[in-house]
Amino acid sequence: MAQQKKMVDAITSMDEDFAKWYTDVCKKAELIEYTSVKGCMVIRPYGYAIWENIQRILDGMFKETGHENVCMPMFIPESLLQKEKDHVEGFAPECAWVTYGGSEKLEERLCVRPTSETLFCEHFKNVVHSHRDLPKLYNQWVSVVRWEKTTRPFLRSREFLWQEGHTLHATAEEAIEETERMLGVYTEFCQKYLAIPVIQGQKTESDKFAGAERTYCIEALMHDGKALQAGTSHYFGDGFARAFDIQFLNKENKLTYPHQTSWGMTTRLIGAIIMTHGDDNGLVLPPDVAPIQAIVIPVAQHKEGVLDKANELCERLKKVCRAKIDDSEQSPGWKFAEYEMKGVPVRVEIGPKDIENNQCVVVTRHNREKTFVSLDNIEEVILEKLAEVRDGIYNAALENRERRTYIAKNLDDITKALEENGDGFIKAMWCGSEECEDKVKELTGVGSRCIPFEQETLGDKCVCCGKEAKTMLYWGKAY
Amino acid sequence: MAQQKKMVDAITSMDEDFAKWYTDVCKKAELIEYTSVKGCMVIRPYGYAIWENIQRILDGMFKETGHENVCMPMFIPESLLQKEKDHVEGFAPECAWVTYGGSEKLEERLCVRPTSETLFCEHFKNVVHSHRDLPKLYNQWVSVVRWEKTTRPFLRSREFLWQEGHTLHATAEEAIEETERMLGVYTEFCQKYLAIPVIQGQKTESDKFAGAERTYCIEALMHDGKALQAGTSHYFGDGFARAFDIQFLNKENKLTYPHQTSWGMTTRLIGAIIMTHGDDNGLVLPPDVAPIQAIVIPVAQHKEGVLDKANELCERLKKVCRAKIDDSEQSPGWKFAEYEMKGVPVRVEIGPKDIENNQCVVVTRHNREKTFVSLDNIEEVILEKLAEVRDGIYNAALENRERRTYIAKNLDDITKALEENGDGFIKAMWCGSEECEDKVKELTGVGSRCIPFEQETLGDKCVCCGKEAKTMLYWGKAY
Repeated sequence: MAQQKKMVDAITSMDEDFAKWYTDVCKKAELIEYTSVKGCMVIRPYGYAIWENIQRILDGMFKETGHENVCMPMFIPESLLQKEKDHVEGFAPECAWVTYGGSEKLEERLCVRPTSETLFCEHFKNVVHSHRDLPKLYNQWVSVVRWEKTTRPFLRSREFLWQEGHTLHATAEEAIEETERMLGVYTEFCQKYLAIPVIQGQKTESDKFAGAERTYCIEALMHDGKALQAGTSHYFGDGFARAFDIQFLNKENKLTYPHQTSWGMTTRLIGAIIMTHGDDNGLVLPPDVAPIQAIVIPVAQHKEGVLDKANELCERLKKVCRAKIDDSEQSPGWKFAEYEMKGVPVRVEIGPKDIENNQCVVVTRHNREKTFVSLDNIEEVILEKLAEVRDGIYNAALENRERRTYIAKNLDDITKALEENGDGFIKAMWCGSEECEDKVKELTGVGSRCIPFEQETLGDKCVCCGKEAKTMLYWGKAY
Repeated sequence: MAQQKKMVDAITSMDEDFAKWYTDVCKKAELIEYTSVKGCMVIRPYGYAIWENIQRILDGMFKETGHENVCMPMFIPESLLQKEKDHVEGFAPECAWVTYGGSEKLEERLCVRPTSETLFCEHFKNVVHSHRDLPKLYNQWVSVVRWEKTTRPFLRSREFLWQEGHTLHATAEEAIEETERMLGVYTEFCQKYLAIPVIQGQKTESDKFAGAERTYCIEALMHDGKALQAGTSHYFGDGFARAFDIQFLNKENKLTYPHQTSWGMTTRLIGAIIMTHGDDNGLVLPPDVAPIQAIVIPVAQHKEGVLDKANELCERLKKVCRAKIDDSEQSPGWKFAEYEMKGVPVRVEIGPKDIENNQCVVVTRHNREKTFVSLDNIEEVILEKLAEVRDGIYNAALENRERRTYIAKNLDDITKALEENGDGFIKAMWCGSEECEDKVKELTGVGSRCIPFEQETLGDKCVCCGKEAKTMLYWGKAY
């Protein structure tokens, strides 16, 4: 039997080529694999396990806020998609169309859902009649299809996994409250569980979801200074209800149009994790969603007693976290590199000397800090270390964002800031006109990201036209 | 405010029209709703919650047997589907075809996956090179599409939810072992958690999965005497590996074709639950997958102290099972009927007199047995009652199957048994020829269901041709 020397291949460094670094990590950490289906990918076990952890936590948060899961069909008849004018205009150009069932041409073509507002509306019309039927607080975990021209793993693919919440309420106030509540859930999820700091805000008119009255969003800043929209929450008013003729008898026994919301998060979050926390050694995973939280690596495992002790240690750790042992024949050095590549938050080494001293070596992934830890209370220390990793990567991401957030008073300020410091968020005042939004983009390359809930007064003049400013805006280049 | 008197509508009785009874239950228990997408349905919160429980339990069983979840694209390019000849012949006639992306005609059309063997094969070819890469034990939870002509909720729909396991092994023995292991998992799941007794067996040659060498299955008997295939597990040999040119270096350093399996269970299981356990009052849910296991119904809830006590009781029950209180303004009688319709295994009534006596009334759904239970140890009793429901419905289903299983020596026996006793399983000897299989079906209406693992000797002559019999077969009409 030939000894297999599979080495962990080096990846491109971030500074050299960030885009290449990103796809290297996706492949080498075994998150995805390409397929012959253009623009679609296989999510491999390690990548999918991250998604399962995301799902489990988010689903729990949805249920705690009173939501129920359902499942709508994956197809939308063309006539149904067309019922809301803005909506179909936004989505039709990127729909995949089913035209044949077996060998028979369909009478009406069906699109593979790019999003499911129209299906939920049809269903709401069937099941909502009285104020007693409201609110409806629904969610579904499915995949959707958008026929993108250029694609990248997790960030932009023709098919992606997501959850889409769809809710229906008796009043506008309730619906707006729901829209804000779910943005709050998304914010908490990103910051607490993914360790990604986000800016909460509202999209400008030109950047709203097709059919929405308002779109709220959370925006994160990636390691390269580009912005990434991590989640959106839309308030629809009663526009869809009118288009689909959904009415209910209110408490005064009058037929009324209900108010609607939708909100979604996608496998894009995995892209956000990679680009927020990753480094030149590969992935760095937030402990809450890491498939393996602690990897036990025996050192000199052929020596008597080492494997037994390492296994015993792993069993103890399994009681408090997702722990695993790698007792394969690869060298410890190979294993160190492998699990760094895979972003495992904590590595635990144990060899003959450690056993003699009743200790092990604990290394945290994000800063490679080494600690000798007594085996007596290893469970406790591992939990502390996991919390340390979570806080450490959150603070590093926040620090990166703050270092890369620039204040601009005029267009020159923007250009200069980007040239001198690299890409990042620009905070600047804005007059509220789409013209200025477009012009800023054209001349400096940064688009509007959101009108942040947390406003600051940075002067009273629009960064572009110099006329009276209405609001502060975050600008940036976006994924 | 007008008092709403929403009544629980009666459903068609089983004996009168079983098919109508079935769809009545699906609708009135709020499991599904129809849509304008022909042959597709909305799975409503109550129905989806059953599926979530099924998923959670099965997924745990898959992981315990070493399987990992992945996610393949939902599209299959036509050329990829065509690589295995038997497979494409079996599935192409019922594929939904995507021919346009946005306004552009695709160069190659894509089918929406009817099953994913071809995608898994393409992926295996990319990631499997050495015996060290084997086995691959994969599963995915997705929906698939088959363009059926006639459809029924859960039993046969154009889109359905399922899990599909796909595994790759170094040897035929290992692959066969896996095929059998997963049939065992399915059997345990059905019998233990769904309380549905099943027959384990092998499909005849003519009834195999397209591309399989062997198809194992579990068959259940519904209340009306029709058979339902509840799960299948396929052994592919190395046929797909050869078609897709998947090879690995074995321990002797020789290029070898690996051996493959796949296995699946679907939302059809919900149909099986309905038709195995349901009655003229509606659903009867196996406790392990019931979204609500115990419903607390306050009696005379306007009287002082009743609601407080009922809520307190519900909180106690929530600690041991999925309990819920209905304190809406509907009458207790309405609520009794409503939760019977929804198949909630245990109902707990509590009114002023009960409170005086420190007791409550517990009613089990399947036999409507009433017990007065002291509040002191209600948690314990509820768990006992849930176990009682599970055992009770399992035994009733087994009794029904045994009563409806007939032994036949010749074609007349079959016809007579069905005429005298109604539909059911026929056990009969078979010579092994497809000709006899077809003839039995043509002349008596029953098709071969499976060659059971548990063989009995019922004579030595084929039930059809009278020639030497090879094996005992189960026959039946099937969903």
